[in-house]
Amino acid sequence: MAADGNRCWRVVRYPYPGELFSAALFDWCEEAVPEPADGEFLVKTICLAPGPAQRGYLDRNHGQLLESVAVGDVMRGRGVGQIVASRNPEYSKGEIFLGSLGWQDYSVQRPRGKEFVFSTKKITRPIRPLSTQLGVLGQAGVTAYFGLLEVGALKHGDRVLVTAGAGGVGSVAGQLARINGANVTVGTTSTDKKCAWMHDELGYDAAINYKTEIIDERLAELFPQGIDVVFDTVGGEILNTALTHLAMQARVVICGFIATDYAVGPQNGPINYRHLLYKRAQMQGFVSFDYWDRYAEAEQALADWHQNGQLINSEDVDEGLVKMPGAVASLFTGDNHGVKICRVTQDPDQLPGE
Amino acid sequence: MAADGNRCWRVVRYPYPGELFSAALFDWCEEAVPEPADGEFLVKTICLAPGPAQRGYLDRNHGQLLESVAVGDVMRGRGVGQIVASRNPEYSKGEIFLGSLGWQDYSVQRPRGKEFVFSTKKITRPIRPLSTQLGVLGQAGVTAYFGLLEVGALKHGDRVLVTAGAGGVGSVAGQLARINGANVTVGTTSTDKKCAWMHDELGYDAAINYKTEIIDERLAELFPQGIDVVFDTVGGEILNTALTHLAMQARVVICGFIATDYAVGPQNGPINYRHLLYKRAQMQGFVSFDYWDRYAEAEQALADWHQNGQLINSEDVDEGLVKMPGAVASLFTGDNHGVKICRVTQDPDQLPGE
Repeated sequence: MAADGNRCWRVVRYPYPGELFSAALFDWCEEAVPEPADGEFLVKTICLAPGPAQRGYLDRNHGQLLESVAVGDVMRGRGVGQIVASRNPEYSKGEIFLGSLGWQDYSVQRPRGKEFVFSTKKITRPIRPLSTQLGVLGQAGVTAYFGLLEVGALKHGDRVLVTAGAGGVGSVAGQLARINGANVTVGTTSTDKKCAWMHDELGYDAAINYKTEIIDERLAELFPQGIDVVFDTVGGEILNTALTHLAMQARVVICGFIATDYAVGPQNGPINYRHLLYKRAQMQGFVSFDYWDRYAEAEQALADWHQNGQLINSEDVDEGLVKMPGAVASLFTGDNHGVKICRVTQDPDQLPGE
Repeated sequence: MAADGNRCWRVVRYPYPGELFSAALFDWCEEAVPEPADGEFLVKTICLAPGPAQRGYLDRNHGQLLESVAVGDVMRGRGVGQIVASRNPEYSKGEIFLGSLGWQDYSVQRPRGKEFVFSTKKITRPIRPLSTQLGVLGQAGVTAYFGLLEVGALKHGDRVLVTAGAGGVGSVAGQLARINGANVTVGTTSTDKKCAWMHDELGYDAAINYKTEIIDERLAELFPQGIDVVFDTVGGEILNTALTHLAMQARVVICGFIATDYAVGPQNGPINYRHLLYKRAQMQGFVSFDYWDRYAEAEQALADWHQNGQLINSEDVDEGLVKMPGAVASLFTGDNHGVKICRVTQDPDQLPGE
């Protein structure tokens, strides 16, 4: 067993009304490494995936998919790690494991099925960096895959808008639109630097800086025939404006609403939902976990696109477990470019299959 | 040819910003009866169907489906009438015709195909009163039919909310939900009298008076397991509240938004669209004309339900062409109960087939 102890972030309180996310919600603890019981195994965390949903775990009445994390508990979070001790014959030391590792160095794990909303599995042929399987080829990728291809029913030649196009899910959705034959793929983001990255690296046809450009005018220029698929993780005025640029029979995929999720005071809803009637369009919400039974299909497709170079690993890495609260906070201020990853320790020198 | 001249309403101006609808927009004229040319026929108006869309014909930039009506022209409107003179061998004097007759006693007509958004046809076996075919078995019925059964994908056992459940389309949608096996059908409306009518005559399980009851509480009571289909013609706060009561995989059918359509000042959109994600629900807009190719199917089904007594003729009749502007205005103030009809003259003593 590792001798260095278990560093972890424990919840000390829930956010006040209007408070977003910060290290003030947690205690940094250094504890003994836990011991696996029969059937369990011990995983050393390598990377964690900060996600906006983690803010929801600290809402008293969250309860959409998962219970809130209790005050005093180690904060919940997905991660990829290596098995360092095992009392389960099907899980061996040295193997790579993906699951709900929590914000800590070491966690005791057991096999979990669909009763749990995280993809929890052994990665038998890991690729480097391991974070790839946590982000672009993992939850972010799967969410973009089903949202764009199933809910959005993307067809060859469709014109696609991805809001927060440089975000975790958005950076994959934009690439998947291109890979799957979208005619025009445009993303919105908050800095010129991210605009350039989206165009040059992710392959967007264009990117809109919503802080300096007039979205309505840019959408009119970029989508003279209207938008067929809006992949939206933002909500607020960007969604509301996009609705006025829909093409006939457009699909609006609601993947999140980070712009208004924890905003203070009364929020304006998308009054332009009326265009759903004018354009006989549909707006549909989804949660990637609903496609749990088909994760393997998505993961295989994503891995294939990654392997042949079409899908780049659009990840944005913070170094050190100590960075986790700030990494989540950055998702609400738009400071990330790509899938946010927090690296807790380096990838092992030797991986299974190498 | 009729000797009594042609009374008609001609448009004199478009509404001012914030102005809804009134006789002030029109001139009442008495003119010569027009003459049909070769291939045309003359129709004497019996009933007209006031509809909220007619407000849109007086918007400068309406243009969603039909051009605006020009100032000076006779106001556009659907109606049912009798052919009183014909220079088309396929249309004979005495036959009953449904089409865009305009707000007038007499109109010259010709056969029109799908290029026109109104159902335009001869009624070969008319039933009395003729208004039935203009409303419950006509446009209102067809709209409710495709909205509820196709867009809303109503299934046996579904729990259904119809906003403006005593309205023109709503009064049919509520009946169709019951006829097609909905488990619970609830409607919203604005008076206790209409609530009683909806329950006693239309067969709603319950009706909510949104002016005196707290919709949120009533929906919680009436839909403890959530709403499967919302058929919405209203928008505004009723829709926004209904969204928080959706069942999983709910369908929200957007048929109109009369609550906010011509409201003055900034309007609040349905911020609770977020529940589309929580409930993996969809919101879809539609226009009945998109189902033009299948109108015959809907009309036959509606006629069968009407004939076997399941679908009552929920019409609300104003007497006299002079009432047309007020009849349309009443749709925006919620004063109608059922499909608004304006009777211009009595049904003929003798109908084809009698």
